[in-house]
Amino acid sequence: MDVQVVNCMTCEEFVRVFGNVVERCPLIAAALWSRRPFSSTLELENGFNEFIDSLSIEGKEGILRCHPDLAGRELLAGTLTVESRGEQGHAGLTSLSSADALRMNQLNSQYKEQFGFPFVICARMSDKDRILQQLESRVRNQQLQELQCGIEEVKSICRLRLQDIYNRAAKSTKL
Amino acid sequence: MDVQVVNCMTCEEFVRVFGNVVERCPLIAAALWSRRPFSSTLELENGFNEFIDSLSIEGKEGILRCHPDLAGRELLAGTLTVESRGEQGHAGLTSLSSADALRMNQLNSQYKEQFGFPFVICARMSDKDRILQQLESRVRNQQLQELQCGIEEVKSICRLRLQDIYNRAAKSTKL
Repeated sequence: MDVQVVNCMTCEEFVRVFGNVVERCPLIAAALWSRRPFSSTLELENGFNEFIDSLSIEGKEGILRCHPDLAGRELLAGTLTVESRGEQGHAGLTSLSSADALRMNQLNSQYKEQFGFPFVICARMSDKDRILQQLESRVRNQQLQELQCGIEEVKSICRLRLQDIYNRAAKSTKL
Repeated sequence: MDVQVVNCMTCEEFVRVFGNVVERCPLIAAALWSRRPFSSTLELENGFNEFIDSLSIEGKEGILRCHPDLAGRELLAGTLTVESRGEQGHAGLTSLSSADALRMNQLNSQYKEQFGFPFVICARMSDKDRILQQLESRVRNQQLQELQCGIEEVKSICRLRLQDIYNRAAKSTKL
């Protein structure tokens, strides 16, 4: 997607296209529309990162709390966002054995009990074994260290979702 | 709803109950969970206001951009949130004459063109004549003055949505 296409979007179009780049936080994309024109798509990506960094600790915790559990209730109920469903599928979380599902559920609960926000990881850069290992390891982090860790994962998710949007746009232009 | 009930909610419950107090901005409710325990429901309401006030200008513009047009495309398409549908219905916007609908549509477009965010008003404290009059008048405001005006309306919407949540909880306790 050419950045000029992005710069020409109305705020409704922009929020429709970029509204879930940060999971269930359309507010962030909606805010970034104020920054047009962007000189590059990288500048838009940096905008997401900067907005996230500018939030208070509770604001950053709020972002993490807008993310669903991995292999959790929402996956079973079919209420995940399209993006999240694809990412969890990519990491093999949609076809866990009962034992792995139980283990992940226990660790997710333990993690949330510990930190007050759900475990967030860029599932597309991972798989179920690494996710389980990271859950076991990160639950031992300090509160602020783990908040920062989750936020860095959000930024990775964000980058890949933006790439997807650009790739889809490039494909549809070719058709 | 007793504030103790609020204080006992998990973050998932809290976001499910309060996630749309600010239209399509669950991030804000999710952030406020960090402030528990609340000493009163008023403190929770103040929390929403403070969080909104703490945002940058682009963040506040982002909040306004998460609101649908009044009597707009989303009302016709049936994609409004439950809260917004109720509020627009209360103000008579679901049964406008063709002439009023056209006029509102023109004014909404003019307003968005002018400010880069949609016109937001607490529809439940208004009706279609006052809304049309306010649209005509507010479109002549200065940019920052109008941003503040829209944000004050968001806070009024917020207060009424919180009251609804408490009232529904009180009724269901009585049953």
